[in-house]
Amino acid sequence: MKLVVGVLKITAGGKRIAIIDDEIAALLGVHSSDRIKLSYKGKEVIALANVAADFPPERVWLYSEMAEALQVTGGETVEVHLAAMPESLNYVRAKLRGERLRAPELSNIVKDVVEQHLSDIEISAFLTALKIYGLDMSETEALSRAMVETGKSLSFGKTPILDKHSIGGIPGDKTSIIVVPIVAAAGFIIPKTSSRAITSPAGTADRVETLCPVNLTVDEIKDVVNKTNGCLVWGGALELAPADDLFIRVEYPLGIDPLLLPSIMSKKKAIGATHLVVDIPTGSGAKIKSPTEAYTLASDFVHLGEHLGITVQCALTLGDQPLGCCIGPALEAQEALITLMGKGPADVYEKALSLAGMLFELVGEKDGRKKAEEIVRSGKAECKLREIIEAQGGNSNVKPEDLPVGLEKAEVRAPKKGKVLWINTESIVRVARAAGTPKDKGAGIILKAKIGDSVAKDSTLFEIYSERSSNLEEALELAKKLEPVVLSKKSGERMVIGQFPAKTESEKSFIFER
Amino acid sequence: MKLVVGVLKITAGGKRIAIIDDEIAALLGVHSSDRIKLSYKGKEVIALANVAADFPPERVWLYSEMAEALQVTGGETVEVHLAAMPESLNYVRAKLRGERLRAPELSNIVKDVVEQHLSDIEISAFLTALKIYGLDMSETEALSRAMVETGKSLSFGKTPILDKHSIGGIPGDKTSIIVVPIVAAAGFIIPKTSSRAITSPAGTADRVETLCPVNLTVDEIKDVVNKTNGCLVWGGALELAPADDLFIRVEYPLGIDPLLLPSIMSKKKAIGATHLVVDIPTGSGAKIKSPTEAYTLASDFVHLGEHLGITVQCALTLGDQPLGCCIGPALEAQEALITLMGKGPADVYEKALSLAGMLFELVGEKDGRKKAEEIVRSGKAECKLREIIEAQGGNSNVKPEDLPVGLEKAEVRAPKKGKVLWINTESIVRVARAAGTPKDKGAGIILKAKIGDSVAKDSTLFEIYSERSSNLEEALELAKKLEPVVLSKKSGERMVIGQFPAKTESEKSFIFER
Repeated sequence: MKLVVGVLKITAGGKRIAIIDDEIAALLGVHSSDRIKLSYKGKEVIALANVAADFPPERVWLYSEMAEALQVTGGETVEVHLAAMPESLNYVRAKLRGERLRAPELSNIVKDVVEQHLSDIEISAFLTALKIYGLDMSETEALSRAMVETGKSLSFGKTPILDKHSIGGIPGDKTSIIVVPIVAAAGFIIPKTSSRAITSPAGTADRVETLCPVNLTVDEIKDVVNKTNGCLVWGGALELAPADDLFIRVEYPLGIDPLLLPSIMSKKKAIGATHLVVDIPTGSGAKIKSPTEAYTLASDFVHLGEHLGITVQCALTLGDQPLGCCIGPALEAQEALITLMGKGPADVYEKALSLAGMLFELVGEKDGRKKAEEIVRSGKAECKLREIIEAQGGNSNVKPEDLPVGLEKAEVRAPKKGKVLWINTESIVRVARAAGTPKDKGAGIILKAKIGDSVAKDSTLFEIYSERSSNLEEALELAKKLEPVVLSKKSGERMVIGQFPAKTESEKSFIFER
Repeated sequence: MKLVVGVLKITAGGKRIAIIDDEIAALLGVHSSDRIKLSYKGKEVIALANVAADFPPERVWLYSEMAEALQVTGGETVEVHLAAMPESLNYVRAKLRGERLRAPELSNIVKDVVEQHLSDIEISAFLTALKIYGLDMSETEALSRAMVETGKSLSFGKTPILDKHSIGGIPGDKTSIIVVPIVAAAGFIIPKTSSRAITSPAGTADRVETLCPVNLTVDEIKDVVNKTNGCLVWGGALELAPADDLFIRVEYPLGIDPLLLPSIMSKKKAIGATHLVVDIPTGSGAKIKSPTEAYTLASDFVHLGEHLGITVQCALTLGDQPLGCCIGPALEAQEALITLMGKGPADVYEKALSLAGMLFELVGEKDGRKKAEEIVRSGKAECKLREIIEAQGGNSNVKPEDLPVGLEKAEVRAPKKGKVLWINTESIVRVARAAGTPKDKGAGIILKAKIGDSVAKDSTLFEIYSERSSNLEEALELAKKLEPVVLSKKSGERMVIGQFPAKTESEKSFIFER
């Protein structure tokens, strides 16, 4: 059927969508969510059909992405047909029936997600089925590989490539900014890509951005890594595993993440990682509440790593309270810099050195923790961070106090004498976001007391920083309502509470004489 | 945050959608699929947020439905906030975890589906979880009731109210047009609502529409039923269970129908049915392939009926080939009329009388089949159909040949001598739709041979009718390719192959002497 194009100057999140009148749809045999094939000047493009009532018939309305794909601007006459159902939809339906999917089938689904041939309804059903039935290791591997294959990859032409990842959830966790320069200073390649905050007060990319640009191209990243062995960049625009963003968008409202493992590991594979330490914060305030849960997840990471050719070591770390004292992009960058300069909080120092040490041991060093400590103490790590900052386009001479912090400041004081019993991380996050994070880089919180600290009546529990007075007021009000620091019992000497696979001492083995 | 309204003159299928720029979304803490609350002149309306890049900031774009709900036309300044997650989404998430939902929770979900507070992603996840985990009877009952409660209901102030339903799938099944007048002629109330074709060549509403208007209002239906005891109307615009249409739209691309039972039974409850016969065509060409499957479904219908206060009798009917000879809206209406006049095909006559008879027995008659036959033979049923046609606004003196049939006609002939071995119903449907059905009411197929008939070489197997020559050509080409009538072994004496609950003869009961 021939229809005249109308172009809607609105985007549909990358999806190719065409709207047709319900009468036209009936003639074409098209239902909402069916695909239609539009042909114009030898070009054929498949779109998802939205069927609407009371639309002008004889017309097909295209969202921006679709108009662009078909190279039309409006007024053109195009041929419109019902298109065949994409093959991948058959595999989605098979998964709804509980079938195990093979690698080529999963690859086909991921490809059609990336190429926007599957609708939200179909992606949601697929993810729900994955969540309910679970994925076996070969499906997890196939999905990881498909997510790598549908995106870009980095290659540095050398091995080993080291990497560090945290599953997140602990406010104030600025460990990466310390681990990357330690590892790079030791001569290992560590091309770290990070995310921005979604629901937290700051992602590593947000923190580093207060020190230097993080939005680098693939070529710029290669330059930085060739110069310095490391980088600290935002991974969001690199299209390393574009399927992931599309899956996350659907998973988010449902509160499910069946693709957590392929999502993380595909990005590590895409940057060519050969050795990876995964930080799994565990505790009441963390995403993972119990060691049992953490060890199960750790085991899955290690096994998937084996399938993908990445040697993985998981660190179960204390996740009962924020890491360090500072929360918010600029405040956290300050604290990371101070820690590399040897004057940071014990827990931040301990955690970063432990993780860097594990990476060293993964590539064959004997006492990794000691090596990491020597690199920090010698000043080499700080020096390396400054090299990276400069290579990424920042000021290598930056001092912690150069990073601008919000001028609007308020203090939350102890209503009584006591000991800090616990700190509600979720409430701390809400207060920090009300203060303006992650958008306002100078906003945030400085904790003046942590779990186990004794506090006097009216002593400061924490300070709130904002760039705008309205935000400060809102954050302060929320802080009074939520009371994130609970008073009424000392920590930080040891941050790592478990390791998987377990660090094995070279035991003497023996066999029974027979 | 204050934003200026822009109105998009496009509909979003009833959904309340507002588009905001990604930077604004970040400031508001809003992600795609989050809800935002828009306030204007004391009015507060919740919308689903679409987050788009490169949109003018300081603006919120509303689809027609949302603009209407907020009573804005563009240019107004409205207050925009992140809205709380709807309670129903918690229940959807609980179902994803496999929890059993209680009636108030399911009711909350259905209400939010109808009020468009849940997105396609969320509805899809809910339906997928229902499909995988299954529903127990109390969940099925609760969903049925919720679907009734969120829609309109009919009440005739009398009982019993009889009804007949077919799960469909058999082309040419015009039984309702015969059953309704038989039952109404016996003095019982039977307010039959039907659907239009979705994937078939004709729905009952499409067939009846060639005889009289079917798009009646609730008040008009009451008038017709008060006058004639029955009606044959389109149920689509009555909003009897509006949730169903919203669920079907999502189920369709996924090929799942976890809500089949609540969907059908809620509509029966909404019209006040007290006694219902459900036709379950069973056979290779039907939706239900085996008697085992059919009895399981039948058992579910009967039990759900018990919970909803509807006495249900299921009829397992032969579903190996099209019913009667005529397929297509006008052709089928002709055949139904001819059958009531005593000159129709044996299978149509047999099936309609059996189902009408079952309904009679459900309300206490002894030999229902005989009673139905008497009503047809006496001419009372034909007379009643004409009464209903007149009451709905049609010509009560209509003759079968008055119904216009497509003038473009072609014949498909037997390539060899033989017996009709089987008729592929799916192929017949495709050919009939290519010929123009259900849109072109005069289009369709007349079968000249049915399963078991002996045919001579070059004798006509079936005729195709179209309103346009292009459709005829397309249908003919498809018929040659698909060969829907397969030749190589008589039927129609008995159409019902099973009954559930089983029809029990009044057996003499006895007890052992003791």
